[in-house]
Amino acid sequence: MSRMPVPQVRPIEWRSGVLRILDQTLLPGDERYIETADWREVASAIRRLAVRGAPLIGVTAAYALALASRSSDDIAVAADELAATRPTAVNLRWALDRVRDVSGGDAIRAEAEAVCIHDEQIASDARCGELGAALIGQGATILTHCNAGSLATGGIGSALGVVKTAHWQGKRINVLVDETRPLLQGSRLTAWELAREGISHEVIVDSAAAGLIAHARVQAIVVGADRIAANGDTANKVGTYGLALAAQAHGVPLYVVAPVSTIDTNVAHGSEIEIEERDGDEVTSFASIRTAPDGTIARNPAFDVTPAALITAIVTERGVLRRPFGAAIASVTEPAAVAR
Amino acid sequence: MSRMPVPQVRPIEWRSGVLRILDQTLLPGDERYIETADWREVASAIRRLAVRGAPLIGVTAAYALALASRSSDDIAVAADELAATRPTAVNLRWALDRVRDVSGGDAIRAEAEAVCIHDEQIASDARCGELGAALIGQGATILTHCNAGSLATGGIGSALGVVKTAHWQGKRINVLVDETRPLLQGSRLTAWELAREGISHEVIVDSAAAGLIAHARVQAIVVGADRIAANGDTANKVGTYGLALAAQAHGVPLYVVAPVSTIDTNVAHGSEIEIEERDGDEVTSFASIRTAPDGTIARNPAFDVTPAALITAIVTERGVLRRPFGAAIASVTEPAAVAR
Repeated sequence: MSRMPVPQVRPIEWRSGVLRILDQTLLPGDERYIETADWREVASAIRRLAVRGAPLIGVTAAYALALASRSSDDIAVAADELAATRPTAVNLRWALDRVRDVSGGDAIRAEAEAVCIHDEQIASDARCGELGAALIGQGATILTHCNAGSLATGGIGSALGVVKTAHWQGKRINVLVDETRPLLQGSRLTAWELAREGISHEVIVDSAAAGLIAHARVQAIVVGADRIAANGDTANKVGTYGLALAAQAHGVPLYVVAPVSTIDTNVAHGSEIEIEERDGDEVTSFASIRTAPDGTIARNPAFDVTPAALITAIVTERGVLRRPFGAAIASVTEPAAVAR
Repeated sequence: MSRMPVPQVRPIEWRSGVLRILDQTLLPGDERYIETADWREVASAIRRLAVRGAPLIGVTAAYALALASRSSDDIAVAADELAATRPTAVNLRWALDRVRDVSGGDAIRAEAEAVCIHDEQIASDARCGELGAALIGQGATILTHCNAGSLATGGIGSALGVVKTAHWQGKRINVLVDETRPLLQGSRLTAWELAREGISHEVIVDSAAAGLIAHARVQAIVVGADRIAANGDTANKVGTYGLALAAQAHGVPLYVVAPVSTIDTNVAHGSEIEIEERDGDEVTSFASIRTAPDGTIARNPAFDVTPAALITAIVTERGVLRRPFGAAIASVTEPAAVAR
C-alpha cells in the first residue's frame, strides 16, 4: 500500500484506560467529546447513536469490553449488554467475541486486542479506499447515503474512504450527499467530513436521488453496509434499497464498501437479517420540535435490505467481490475464519 | 353522485371580497388564517407555500385575479405576476386564463368565475373520490406522498379524496404517509387531515417506502399530480418517481389522481416539464436550526417526473384513464377544450 492516510476526524481515541468518544449527535453544530472509563457509559453512547456506523460500533464495543475487563464486572454480562445495544450491525458481536476469546478476561490482553481491531480497521479502510477508487472515473459525480466515513469506521471510512482516495488521486469528483432521514447522518456528518477534506459536495433530500439519477447526474453510487449475508444481500441504512432500484433502472453502478467483518456467513439470505425498528419520535419530531400532530404514530425501520442482484460489486479489504457473490464471499471469509 | 361530502378543512374561503387563507406553513402546530383583499399578498402566500397544491393554487390564483379586478391595477400585469409564483403547476395558468377570458376585467364576472372554479374543484374531487375508491380493496394499506388532500385542492382532496371516500365506504383502510422532505407536507399536513377524518395512518420517512413495499406492506400507492403531459408522464412532488420504481418492482399499482385541469396537452412528454428548483436552505435547515455545516450547498428540485409506463391509472373527474394514456387523455381533454 503506497500510503496510509491519517484520518482528519477521530471519532474515538483510546488514551491509556480512558475512551474518548466524539458525540456525533451534536454534530455539525458542536464538536464535543465524552471521556469515560465506564463500559456502561460506552454502551449508552452506542445505544443513543453518539457513536454509530457498523465498523466503528465494533471497534468501540471492543474498547468497552477492555474497560469491563479492568473492572470487577462479569465480562460475559458486559459482552451481552454491549451486544444488545444495536441488533443489526454484525461487527459488534464479532468484535466482542474476538476480544473475549483472545483475552480470556485478562485486561492487558483485552486492551491490546481492542487496539489491534482498531488498527486493522484503519488499514482495512485504506485498502478498500485504493481498491474502490480504481472503480471511479475522472470527473465523476458519486452519490452516497448516510455516513460511511471516518465517523462510521474510525479510519478514513468505507464508502467515504473510496471517495477520499479518488479525491487524493486528483479525480475531480463531486459528491451528492443524501441527507438521510430521520437522523440526518448525511447532511450532519458526511457533509462535515467532506468539507474537512475539501471535497466538492451538494446535499439533497433522500427522495431527490431517483430523479437526479434519471437525469444522468450520477455516475456511481457508493455506500457502506451494516450486515452482508452469505449470498451478498446487504442490509444498510434505510433508503439504500430505493437507491439500488433507481441505479438498476438507469444503469448506474452500485458499490457496497465494507470490511469482511461486516459479512455474516451465518445468514444465508437478506430476509434473515433482523431489521432494527427505532422510536417513532425520531420521525415525528426534530430537535424537540414536533413535525407531525400530537399523537401521530410513525414506523421507523432503521435499515433495509438490498438484494445482491442489484449490487455491482462489494469492495472489501481482501478484494473487490463480483457476482455471483456466494462464491466470492466464501473465498474471502473462509481463510479469515481459519486465521481467527 | 350519491353525496357531496363537506370538506372538514377549508384552506381558502371567499367572504364577499376578502380571501381567507389558512397559512399551511404553520401547521400542524398553529391553525392561523391570512385575511386579505390584496392580490399581491395572495401572490406572496402562493410563493412562500402558505397555500400550495396544484389545484388549490389554481383556485387561489383565480380569487386573486378577482381581487385584482376590483383594484385599479392592470389585470394583465397581475395575471403575469400570479402566473410566475410557481412554475410547475399548470392549473395556475389555466385558472388565470379562464378568469381573465370570461370576465374581460369585470370585477363581478371575475368573482363569479373564481367561485365557479372553486365549486367545480369541489365537485371534481368528489367524483375522483368515487372513481378512485372503487380501485381500493377492503383492508388495504395505501401509501401516499406529499399532501394531495383538502389542503391541496379546496375540496376533499385528489389522492386523499380517494382515501377518504374508501374510508367512508367502510373499507377499513390504513395509510402510510411519506413525511415528504424537505417541507414535510406529509407529516405536517396529510397526517393532520387524516387525523381529523379519523383515518388510521402511520408516518414514515420517505426512504422507508421502498423497503415496506418490498415487504408487501402496501397494496396501492395513490398520489396527486402537479402537471401531466399529453402522453401521461406526470410531474409530482419530488420522490414520486422513486416510489413508482419500487411499485413496479413489486407489482403494486400506482394511481395518480388529478383533475383534468392538471393535464397540459401543450406538453408532449414529461421531459419538457420545467422542474422548479427551490432554495437550498429548505434542505440544510429546519425551523431555523442548521442541519448541515455552515456554507453547505444543497440542490433542491421540488418535483420529479414519473414516466407514464410506471403509472397504473390516472383518475380524473371525467373517468379513470388507462394506458395507452395518449388516447385516453385526448378523449377527456378535447371536449373540455371545446366547452371552455
